Amino acid sequence: MSDFEKKFLNLLNEKKTCLCIGLDPALPRQRSENVISLKYLGSGSENEARLNYCLDIIEETRDYCIAAKPNQQYVFGFTKQEHQSLTSRIRDSHMLSILDYKLNDIGQSIESAIFHLAECGYDAITFNPLPGNLEETVKTAHGPVRKSRGFELGIIVLTLMSNPEAEKYMKTARIGSNSLFQTIAKDVKEYEADGCVVSASGYVTEDDIKNVRKIVGEEKVFLTPGIGTQGGDLGKIIRAGGRNILINVGREIIYSPNPRKRAEEYCTTINKIRNK
Amino acid sequence: MSDFEKKFLNLLNEKKTCLCIGLDPALPRQRSENVISLKYLGSGSENEARLNYCLDIIEETRDYCIAAKPNQQYVFGFTKQEHQSLTSRIRDSHMLSILDYKLNDIGQSIESAIFHLAECGYDAITFNPLPGNLEETVKTAHGPVRKSRGFELGIIVLTLMSNPEAEKYMKTARIGSNSLFQTIAKDVKEYEADGCVVSASGYVTEDDIKNVRKIVGEEKVFLTPGIGTQGGDLGKIIRAGGRNILINVGREIIYSPNPRKRAEEYCTTINKIRNK
Repeated sequence: MSDFEKKFLNLLNEKKTCLCIGLDPALPRQRSENVISLKYLGSGSENEARLNYCLDIIEETRDYCIAAKPNQQYVFGFTKQEHQSLTSRIRDSHMLSILDYKLNDIGQSIESAIFHLAECGYDAITFNPLPGNLEETVKTAHGPVRKSRGFELGIIVLTLMSNPEAEKYMKTARIGSNSLFQTIAKDVKEYEADGCVVSASGYVTEDDIKNVRKIVGEEKVFLTPGIGTQGGDLGKIIRAGGRNILINVGREIIYSPNPRKRAEEYCTTINKIRNK
Repeated sequence: MSDFEKKFLNLLNEKKTCLCIGLDPALPRQRSENVISLKYLGSGSENEARLNYCLDIIEETRDYCIAAKPNQQYVFGFTKQEHQSLTSRIRDSHMLSILDYKLNDIGQSIESAIFHLAECGYDAITFNPLPGNLEETVKTAHGPVRKSRGFELGIIVLTLMSNPEAEKYMKTARIGSNSLFQTIAKDVKEYEADGCVVSASGYVTEDDIKNVRKIVGEEKVFLTPGIGTQGGDLGKIIRAGGRNILINVGREIIYSPNPRKRAEEYCTTINKIRNK
C-alpha cells in the first residue's frame, strides 16, 4: 500500500467521513458571484487574502472532512511559503492535502514540478495522463520524494472527468479494444499510482465506475468531483466506487452562508448512503 | 487572424528568426547539472534568483529569438508580480511571451486560470486538450481577455509531444478513423485556437507534421520542442511545418557557457535550412 493510501485509511477510520473540501478562492474582482468576502482584502496582498480565506474554511469544516483540495487555478501565484502554510494547517487539522494541479509534462520538467510540489508539503497531486509518462512520474513522486521529505507524493490520475465535454477524449477515444479511460486505469494499476479522478456526472455510468474499480483494485483512492454545483450523483459513486472514495464538494460549501453546517450536512448525507 | 498570429508575423518580419528560448531555471539544490549559477543565490529569495537568471538570459539571447517560453514546472511559486516582471522584459525585448503551463481544467476553474494568466501579461499559454473543452477555453482567452487587457491570450494546444511515451495516447489512440492528434488538430481549427505544440522527435514523422499543418491551416503557429537535448530533427519540422513555426531550444542554450553565442548559432543554422 502506498503512503497516500495508508494515510487515507487511517483518517477514514479516525474521522468516519470521506468528504473532501474543495478550496477555490476567487477574488471579488474576478467574477460576480461565489467569491471570497471583502473582509479578507482589508489589508495585505491578494495572496494573503486567498490564503487566509482558505485557512478559515479549513478551520470551519475540519470536523467533517477527510481532505482539502486547493485548485491550482485558484491559488495561482501562491509562493512556496504560502503553499506550506496551507498544507501545514491541513495536516494539523487531520486532513489530507491534495493540490488539484493536473500536472502534465515530460522528463526533467516533471522532476522539477515534483521537486517544488513535494517541498510545498502536499500529500498528493492530480495528474493528467495525456503525455503517457505516468510511470516516470510515479517513480519520481514515490522514491526520491520519500527519501527527501519522509513520505511519498501521491499521484491521482484524471480518469473520468466531470465535465460533459470530457466524454469525447476519455470515453469515445479508443486504444485497441479499450476506451481511453480503461487504458488510463490499466496504467494506474501497472505503474502503481495512488488513485483516480472518477466523476459521477452525466456521461459516466455506474458500470464505468465499477469497471475502473475492477481494473485498479480496491485500494486506489477515487477522488470524485462534480458533486454539488455540477450535479454529480452521490448514490452512483457510493454504490459503484467501493470503500476508498473521496467526495469533493467545493463551491456549495465554501460559498454557503454557513460552511461548517453545510459540510456537516454533506457528511451526514454521504454517511447515510454509505451505511445503507 | 488572431492577435497572437499577427504578433508572430510582425516579429518574424522584424527579427528574421523563429528561435524560441526555453526558460527552465533549476535551483542548484534541485539537481546536479543544468542549474542556475550560484551567483544568483547570493542574497534574496530563490524566486528572485530564478527571475534574475531568466531576465539575464533574455537580455543575452534577445537578438536571436522571437519568443521566450518559461516552463511552469520551473517557475512554480512565482507570484503574479514576478510573472509580470518576466513578461514585461520579454515584451520590451521584442519577443513573444509563452507560458508553458499545459493548462487543463473545467468551467469556472478554466476561467480562473485565464483570469490570473492574462494578468501576468503572457501572449500565449500551452494547453492540454484531454478534458475536451478547448472551445470554452479559447472563447474565454480571446473575448473577455481582449476586453480587459487589450489583447487576446493565445492558446497553443499539445498535439504531438516530443517524449517517446506520448505516442501511445496521442498517435495510437483513435476517435473514429482519426488518430487522437488528428482529432486534436481538427478541434484547433474548429475552435480557433492559436497554435499547436508539434514536435519533430522520433515517433513524429514528416507526414504527421504535414498532416497537422493541412488540418489547421497555414496561419496557426507551431511550437516545436525537443530540438537540442532531446534530439528532435530540425530539418523535419522546417520542411514539413510551413512558415509559422517557433523552434524552442532550452537547456542547450541557457546552460551553455555562452548563451548569446549559442543562440546565434541556432538562429543561423535554422535560417540556413529555412532559406534553402
